Amino acid sequence: MHDRFLRACRREPVDVTPVWFMRQAGRYMAEYRALRAKRTMLEICKTPELALEVTLQPLRLGMDAAILFADILLPLEPMGASFEFAKGEGPVIHEPIRTRADVDRLRVCDPEEGLGYVLDALRLIRRELDGKTPVIGFAGAPFTIASYMIEGGKSSSYQLTKKMMWSEPELWGDLMRKVSEVVRLFLRAQVKAGAQAVQLFDSWVGSLSVEDYCAHVQPHVRHILADAMTLGVPVIHFGTGTSTLLEAQRDAGGTVIGVDWRIPLDLAWSRIGFDKAVQGNLDPLLLLAPPELAVERTRAVLRAAAGRPGHIFNLGHGIVPETPVDTVRAVIDAVHEGI
Amino acid sequence: MHDRFLRACRREPVDVTPVWFMRQAGRYMAEYRALRAKRTMLEICKTPELALEVTLQPLRLGMDAAILFADILLPLEPMGASFEFAKGEGPVIHEPIRTRADVDRLRVCDPEEGLGYVLDALRLIRRELDGKTPVIGFAGAPFTIASYMIEGGKSSSYQLTKKMMWSEPELWGDLMRKVSEVVRLFLRAQVKAGAQAVQLFDSWVGSLSVEDYCAHVQPHVRHILADAMTLGVPVIHFGTGTSTLLEAQRDAGGTVIGVDWRIPLDLAWSRIGFDKAVQGNLDPLLLLAPPELAVERTRAVLRAAAGRPGHIFNLGHGIVPETPVDTVRAVIDAVHEGI
Repeated sequence: MHDRFLRACRREPVDVTPVWFMRQAGRYMAEYRALRAKRTMLEICKTPELALEVTLQPLRLGMDAAILFADILLPLEPMGASFEFAKGEGPVIHEPIRTRADVDRLRVCDPEEGLGYVLDALRLIRRELDGKTPVIGFAGAPFTIASYMIEGGKSSSYQLTKKMMWSEPELWGDLMRKVSEVVRLFLRAQVKAGAQAVQLFDSWVGSLSVEDYCAHVQPHVRHILADAMTLGVPVIHFGTGTSTLLEAQRDAGGTVIGVDWRIPLDLAWSRIGFDKAVQGNLDPLLLLAPPELAVERTRAVLRAAAGRPGHIFNLGHGIVPETPVDTVRAVIDAVHEGI
Repeated sequence: MHDRFLRACRREPVDVTPVWFMRQAGRYMAEYRALRAKRTMLEICKTPELALEVTLQPLRLGMDAAILFADILLPLEPMGASFEFAKGEGPVIHEPIRTRADVDRLRVCDPEEGLGYVLDALRLIRRELDGKTPVIGFAGAPFTIASYMIEGGKSSSYQLTKKMMWSEPELWGDLMRKVSEVVRLFLRAQVKAGAQAVQLFDSWVGSLSVEDYCAHVQPHVRHILADAMTLGVPVIHFGTGTSTLLEAQRDAGGTVIGVDWRIPLDLAWSRIGFDKAVQGNLDPLLLLAPPELAVERTRAVLRAAAGRPGHIFNLGHGIVPETPVDTVRAVIDAVHEGI
């Protein structure tokens, strides 16, 4: 049953609950660390053969879907906002986007040109996995991408981002429109290149009130997802800290709504509505706990989702580098074993 | 009506909604920055006359309560876990608490000895403000304090904290019990020294699932709050990112439940129950927006709380240093003007 992930996205019956993990290809795996000792993150992203290699690495653990190895910030470079991953500091945007001139100089790039290497990697991955494991493409959502652009990197408060949103709503709108159009085109190109599902990562949108989300973010997400929903593949709409935004996110679009660990999955699903599929929602740090506890909590997530089709097991956010591979394997096995 | 804050905590009728701000004495004020140019944060905390001076500084803006100038980490030093505020980095705990030996060497200190300077400051403040403005004492909640102890400073993931909680539940319980007992005694001593209300800051507890909160945190918070509720003063129970924890926090105790901006105040209050007072819930970064917008959103908060007694206006978290004083004043005036 290699299509159980896609079937669950469509809320069709499955043999067992499908499972994959955000950042399932990453530093917790020795193979990945060995490659990273020789290559930078961006070199891997920009070399389709290496992106393929890394994408495939975790699949021996038994995940039901592969996710393209890439980064949500890759569109920044072809848009004209160069950045790097500084050692131990995360992404650093060389010239943060803060003024009208900054926004105006951003290009709505053609992904086939500026992000061709991602699409090439996807084509390789799809060819390699075709008929075996479905492959997920992805992009960052406009709020999350804009927050990196404006803050210059990862923020804990989104102070400059919110300040622009409130103080210069026209400038904010123009920035969001440019980013959203790039993301829309990028997801479309990924599906054309072979992605069998796509995920929109609005990782940091949980910092907003419901009012601000609906006024300043939702219309832009809707622009992307309304188009993505016409592409014939499942669309996963993900965020963290979004307990109060779930209904608004559902209304913005998506076949599957991602849920983090801060809200019990059954409560989240009842608020989203059982006519949508859900993905989640183990705390990723539980993979650092004793494996018996990680498995126990995995079963609790399965119980919360039991009795109806449309659950994809995942973490509430990405795997952390310190995660033991054996615990990942134990959780995957527990998901497939069922309750 | 200088008792409107205390009356609102008790859900008694008030002339206008009371307002105060977390971190209302701080770097956004020129007087505070001038003093900080000469003195460190800890020097101010440890010199009752200076703590008094700083506590009084913001009151000219019209707040309805004063909050003791101190820091939630002050109990660490008398417990045997020294720390400093490193320039631009926040608190740094010199020897993080991670092993059985680390927990065992922590002392359940007598606040009258180890934290006498805080109590002296409170006595000065109460004498100065008596009959004019009520004074709020405070302490950090055990999860939030323990997270600093274990991580060695502010964390974004609470990785080591959660790992101890799950992997060494006995050690975690012992640490939480020691911290909780210190906090319980400290709040008791603060009320004896003149605090007319106390606030428990569980600032980082929103990183937990409901299940983990109830299993690993709530019993310890209850230990503190059950005692605090016998002291005859209102007890404010505050956290951020707690949209899914509100019922569990209410059950743990408190006269007033603090609510952040991620959940609409009326929805939060209906979940907490109208037999409790609520405090909140403007996004503190709205004070960086144009003053008209900050005032508009202030009125929206007032509207969400209208029609019943028991609302204390506040931010969802502390004022940031970049906040213009004039906007603070405009928001206070708008609260007092009403809808």
